[in-house]
Amino acid sequence: MFFFSKVKGMNLIVIEQKELRGSRVRLTDRRAKHIAKVLRAVPGETVKIGVVNGPIGFGTIVNLCSTFPFSVEIDVDCKRRPPAKGPVDFILALPRPIMLRRIMSQATALGVGNIHIINANRVEKSFWSSGAIEESEWHDLILQGLEQCIDTVPPKISFHRRFRPFVEDSLPEIAQGYSACLYAHPESEKKLHNCLGGDEQKILIAIGPEGGWVDFEADMFRQLGFFGFTLGERILKVDTAVINIHGRAVAHLQR
Amino acid sequence: MFFFSKVKGMNLIVIEQKELRGSRVRLTDRRAKHIAKVLRAVPGETVKIGVVNGPIGFGTIVNLCSTFPFSVEIDVDCKRRPPAKGPVDFILALPRPIMLRRIMSQATALGVGNIHIINANRVEKSFWSSGAIEESEWHDLILQGLEQCIDTVPPKISFHRRFRPFVEDSLPEIAQGYSACLYAHPESEKKLHNCLGGDEQKILIAIGPEGGWVDFEADMFRQLGFFGFTLGERILKVDTAVINIHGRAVAHLQR
Repeated sequence: MFFFSKVKGMNLIVIEQKELRGSRVRLTDRRAKHIAKVLRAVPGETVKIGVVNGPIGFGTIVNLCSTFPFSVEIDVDCKRRPPAKGPVDFILALPRPIMLRRIMSQATALGVGNIHIINANRVEKSFWSSGAIEESEWHDLILQGLEQCIDTVPPKISFHRRFRPFVEDSLPEIAQGYSACLYAHPESEKKLHNCLGGDEQKILIAIGPEGGWVDFEADMFRQLGFFGFTLGERILKVDTAVINIHGRAVAHLQR
Repeated sequence: MFFFSKVKGMNLIVIEQKELRGSRVRLTDRRAKHIAKVLRAVPGETVKIGVVNGPIGFGTIVNLCSTFPFSVEIDVDCKRRPPAKGPVDFILALPRPIMLRRIMSQATALGVGNIHIINANRVEKSFWSSGAIEESEWHDLILQGLEQCIDTVPPKISFHRRFRPFVEDSLPEIAQGYSACLYAHPESEKKLHNCLGGDEQKILIAIGPEGGWVDFEADMFRQLGFFGFTLGERILKVDTAVINIHGRAVAHLQR
């Protein structure tokens, strides 16, 4: 914490490499407004700043226009590596748009490194034609997650519109990167801690749509070596489930 | 799961005791619309139904008007006890209204039994004059949480507008009901699992405002035997923190 103790604001100002001119960046969008109106920074003060997929450090305010149109010029000095991604990745049956949006920023803030969003029998078909799956829709949510948790590396997010080709052709190779693969399934008898030895380094967790995975889908996960687990008798919405299961999994890996 | 396998819908229809006339209830509000339009139930079919602070069971549709104005008459047969509350309760510094609303329904769905919402140095004063703290504002959010997780018992929610009187006069007695009391504090060196032996039955966790507890507040918790813990270097929004910490705590208690 000492590292940032003299710096304005809790969150990170996230910039793109292409915005830098040497060590200077000039912001005129919501970030400039945030620095001027929320942080109330003045020239000479420093903010936390980081470059997407790059290092984190300090930015010294050089010039600032604190009324509309807002603009801030910052001298950037970034040398610190971003935090490592966490040990838990997800496969998610495409959730309804409002849920997807919440999950994008919250999973980013939690340090999830990979999210595979797939089709499933009980996914409503209309979700696939929602704008929420377009990168232009969720790009800002990812940035907000990074700003919140002081990170610069977006999670890798991929969409797979067909369940079976994903599971048969892509998942076997993906699964090799994990010490354990799990799928949430209310009908399972095992709980999460029954599926983990506690010495796993990295785990992949598949969470189904409202109503859960159908038998065919659960069977396919099982054939690939995934273990089914239940959270208990309470059924959760998918956003609550992702955040809560992430916490449980991280805790079991820390034993 | 078998218990409900022939029943329409995943969620619970929650009714109040005073709505019952003998074993019959007549609904004309959003619950009637939900049964008619989402569940598309017809007379003779059954739904999951539960009485607030009472038992859970089945309701058989007796009459139904599936067009506006919607109405449904249900014959209610509830004998099953609601699920037990979970082992994790919270003290929360009053969050901003949008966060408070999300936490209300999500914490209810997770089976949190008690939430004490308190003031803290870094709570924005305006939050206390927000409508979000009025029971009329969050009553429905609690019901939605109960519907989601098939429970009938709302969490006990209390508001305390002054930090020091709450901590000095009320908290010592409250804390006696728990095997461990913790407070989230990014400056702590211990992680959650360093603060728990794993044999705790019930734990109470205090989560601060944006920016965290001030030293004075952390000191007061410590004097009452609370242990400070950090989630690591990532700073989370309070709604993400509550749901994720709940998962971590439950996992540590299941070791």
